[in-house]
Amino acid sequence: MTATIKLGELAEFLGATLHGSPEKEITGLATLQEAGPAQLSFLANPQYRKYLVDSRAAAVLLKAADAEGFAGDALVVADPYLAYAKVSHMFDPKPKAAGGIHPSAMIADDAQVDPAASIGAFAVIESGARIAAGVTVGAHCFIGARCEIGADGWLAPRVTLYHDVRIGQRVVIQSGAVIGGEGFGFANAKGVWHKIAQVGGVLIGDDVEIGVNTAVDRGALADTVIGNGVKLDNQIQIAHNVQIGDHTAMAACVGISGSTRIGKHCMLAGGVGLVGHIDICDNVFITGMTMVTHSITEPGAYSSGTAMQPAAEWRKSAARLRQLDDMARRLKQLEKRVGEVTPGGNASSEG
Amino acid sequence: MTATIKLGELAEFLGATLHGSPEKEITGLATLQEAGPAQLSFLANPQYRKYLVDSRAAAVLLKAADAEGFAGDALVVADPYLAYAKVSHMFDPKPKAAGGIHPSAMIADDAQVDPAASIGAFAVIESGARIAAGVTVGAHCFIGARCEIGADGWLAPRVTLYHDVRIGQRVVIQSGAVIGGEGFGFANAKGVWHKIAQVGGVLIGDDVEIGVNTAVDRGALADTVIGNGVKLDNQIQIAHNVQIGDHTAMAACVGISGSTRIGKHCMLAGGVGLVGHIDICDNVFITGMTMVTHSITEPGAYSSGTAMQPAAEWRKSAARLRQLDDMARRLKQLEKRVGEVTPGGNASSEG
Amino acid sequence: MTATIKLGELAEFLGATLHGSPEKEITGLATLQEAGPAQLSFLANPQYRKYLVDSRAAAVLLKAADAEGFAGDALVVADPYLAYAKVSHMFDPKPKAAGGIHPSAMIADDAQVDPAASIGAFAVIESGARIAAGVTVGAHCFIGARCEIGADGWLAPRVTLYHDVRIGQRVVIQSGAVIGGEGFGFANAKGVWHKIAQVGGVLIGDDVEIGVNTAVDRGALADTVIGNGVKLDNQIQIAHNVQIGDHTAMAACVGISGSTRIGKHCMLAGGVGLVGHIDICDNVFITGMTMVTHSITEPGAYSSGTAMQPAAEWRKSAARLRQLDDMARRLKQLEKRVGEVTPGGNASSEG
Repeated sequence: MTATIKLGELAEFLGATLHGSPEKEITGLATLQEAGPAQLSFLANPQYRKYLVDSRAAAVLLKAADAEGFAGDALVVADPYLAYAKVSHMFDPKPKAAGGIHPSAMIADDAQVDPAASIGAFAVIESGARIAAGVTVGAHCFIGARCEIGADGWLAPRVTLYHDVRIGQRVVIQSGAVIGGEGFGFANAKGVWHKIAQVGGVLIGDDVEIGVNTAVDRGALADTVIGNGVKLDNQIQIAHNVQIGDHTAMAACVGISGSTRIGKHCMLAGGVGLVGHIDICDNVFITGMTMVTHSITEPGAYSSGTAMQPAAEWRKSAARLRQLDDMARRLKQLEKRVGEVTPGGNASSEG
Repeated sequence: MTATIKLGELAEFLGATLHGSPEKEITGLATLQEAGPAQLSFLANPQYRKYLVDSRAAAVLLKAADAEGFAGDALVVADPYLAYAKVSHMFDPKPKAAGGIHPSAMIADDAQVDPAASIGAFAVIESGARIAAGVTVGAHCFIGARCEIGADGWLAPRVTLYHDVRIGQRVVIQSGAVIGGEGFGFANAKGVWHKIAQVGGVLIGDDVEIGVNTAVDRGALADTVIGNGVKLDNQIQIAHNVQIGDHTAMAACVGISGSTRIGKHCMLAGGVGLVGHIDICDNVFITGMTMVTHSITEPGAYSSGTAMQPAAEWRKSAARLRQLDDMARRLKQLEKRVGEVTPGGNASSEG
Repeated sequence: MTATIKLGELAEFLGATLHGSPEKEITGLATLQEAGPAQLSFLANPQYRKYLVDSRAAAVLLKAADAEGFAGDALVVADPYLAYAKVSHMFDPKPKAAGGIHPSAMIADDAQVDPAASIGAFAVIESGARIAAGVTVGAHCFIGARCEIGADGWLAPRVTLYHDVRIGQRVVIQSGAVIGGEGFGFANAKGVWHKIAQVGGVLIGDDVEIGVNTAVDRGALADTVIGNGVKLDNQIQIAHNVQIGDHTAMAACVGISGSTRIGKHCMLAGGVGLVGHIDICDNVFITGMTMVTHSITEPGAYSSGTAMQPAAEWRKSAARLRQLDDMARRLKQLEKRVGEVTPGGNASSEG
């Protein structure tokens, strides 16, 4: 269940400078405060430097500057957090799926499943689908007609791909995610909604991660597109024909409305919502629960919402906010009157 | 995989006036900008009129006014968007489910499945359930005891209906949706929550659509009710005993708290939240991410929230907002003082 | 499908004082307004007292004060809502799962399933998992390696537990919930995200309820922890290493970011969002859709957001809000000028 790896092996794997015994055995990972004498830890955030000296960790991933004067064992690396990311997979207790096709899985005759793929119990793979080598399809997954999953992908149990979803290499999809659902397309005639068939598909790049219960709708006409290296957290909604640029990351509960395009290397914090048909340029950071109602053309950080207050104070603020337009007009009027009766009075600065 | 339909056939199907050759073959749909020489397009939004003249589309669905002076082939109709909705289904690559009951499905002895229904692999249909003609139940669906699904419904793979969910005709439910879950009912006694059994069911009208991973809870006592023609997008939460009027539409990530009633022909944009036990009248439009804390008795558009700003400016606004009550009082005081020293000073307009 | 229970039996079960015939037969529950002559009702909220006199209910759960002068049959109890909660389970039409392991379920050889547990169709139980007596595992559930489910738990159809999820006694998990998904852990190096294995698990106490499509991520290093008696509604996101104190309740669509700790007996209304790495003390109430960006150290109620307005008025408020910092400065300047020209002028009260 848990791996045992020697410190020297870890140093070699990471290209790290080792301070300490290469024979010391590491059996797991933990924070500086919680690590026991067989666990590796790391110091990435300077806030936690105070915990370094008393840590019981077997060894610590450190920058050279932090390693100076540290008496314990250390693996000195340029980027301790990245090093931690790399070694974390060595200690992952996640079970490795059995190879081959589980006898209970239903595979269409003309689906192509590479012999080096793993298909779990009760999985359904429909006509014309293609599953590459090294792919794990978890139990209860549904892979629709003509879907393609590139090499070394990992689908948790219970992932749904509708038809015509094409996925690149090394893509991870968590349980409950649904890719290719029929987007919200309706034409209203005399108050009644008429469904529009969603004839596009979904195109997902390499090294993408899609979180638990996240939904990515298929395109109405052309495809919905998720770029390379995009990371989507849990409970996210991606509507039809959204395009997401490479290496953009979104935290949980984000909602992106139809046909909106998001650039590369953007970060959307939790609960952000974007209206449809807008463009977000590269390198934009949007803080949590922000409502984005128009395009963003300049990189930078953006926010909306109000700061939390005790509820009694908040009720006053919220009531006053509805008077704000009135207050602004009264302020301007007052400035004018005061300007008329005082020397050197200047006009309102209001635009 | 793709249909080929002659322009003349489309004209006849739509009752459209054809400008061009009835023999021209159409193989798909696309936007004006992206359409190739075998694809049909449409002009519904005047913003896209500029793309009409250069479109390579085989033909375009147009209003009579837009068709005047258009040199290309056209299908002239009263409502191009509605016409597009209608023909879209002809070009839908969605696979049609095989008829009959998949041998792996588990059907209770006393469940009634019409011979003209389709039940997918690993579906489970419990005691007393009734599935009408023309219904598709996707793979991995669970249909609880005594559920009823009316004619021509379509359930994507992996939809859960708890017991006693009654669904009308032509209802579409996307993957991951859960209908009839046990709502959040607890009685608090001395700080400990005691579960209240949710003994009601769910009643869903005709022509309803329910999106990916949307949840509709069963009633606590009476049923939760979704009217005819209601369209619910993805990731929506409908709590116990909510009632939604006919032809109301909700975009993704909306949350409706318990026992709230929403009228007919309402539209809720993405991320809207409603508290419980309120009434929303007919023909209300609520903009994205609005928090609705009281009943709405007049048709119209409603909003809450703040506009997005660069984060540095937003921090100032958010800080000032907490001072707003103080500012309002100071403004009033200032008006009083200025009124006392200037002629014709009138009192504050503040209520 | 429906139970029939005599009023005398209910009085005995509840320890209630009976006004009326112990032989009267009760077949269900309903509100005061909707109850028929064989249904039991209750009066908990004083707002509904007006419906008592005309209620057709067979009997009503009442406090002693409300029972005085009530002519109908009554069960007099100290807490009618709690009494309703207790008797509600007697009238619950939820089907009871068949005992034993469904023949289609896939159980690993070394998994331990108590003979008094019920395992549904197509369920998958992986290596080393332990299912205690009285547990129901619904159809299509996936129970990962080494998971433990304590006595008398109830998992709806289609619940996913990843590996190493430990669950206490009497825990209820609704359909679509995913426990133990891989949290959003990535190290960014030169703009590219590198996945961090999530090596922790999830620890869930006794008497917990987890709603439809709710996600609880596994810990990055140590476990994510849900205390005893915690109630989570639908569509909630609990990120890695969150800790939730005993008897805290969250309404639907709440999102909690990584490593945040929430105290005991807190209540989070619908749509609330919390940033990561903060602490919320015991007995905190957070109103709907509030954005919580820092720790809370005092019990009480907290809010953010703005009140709903008609959209036209809201647009003015939202525009003015962006001018608020400017307005505040102008107000202060005006106070200074007025103070200079009027007698007894005092300085701004602004901090």
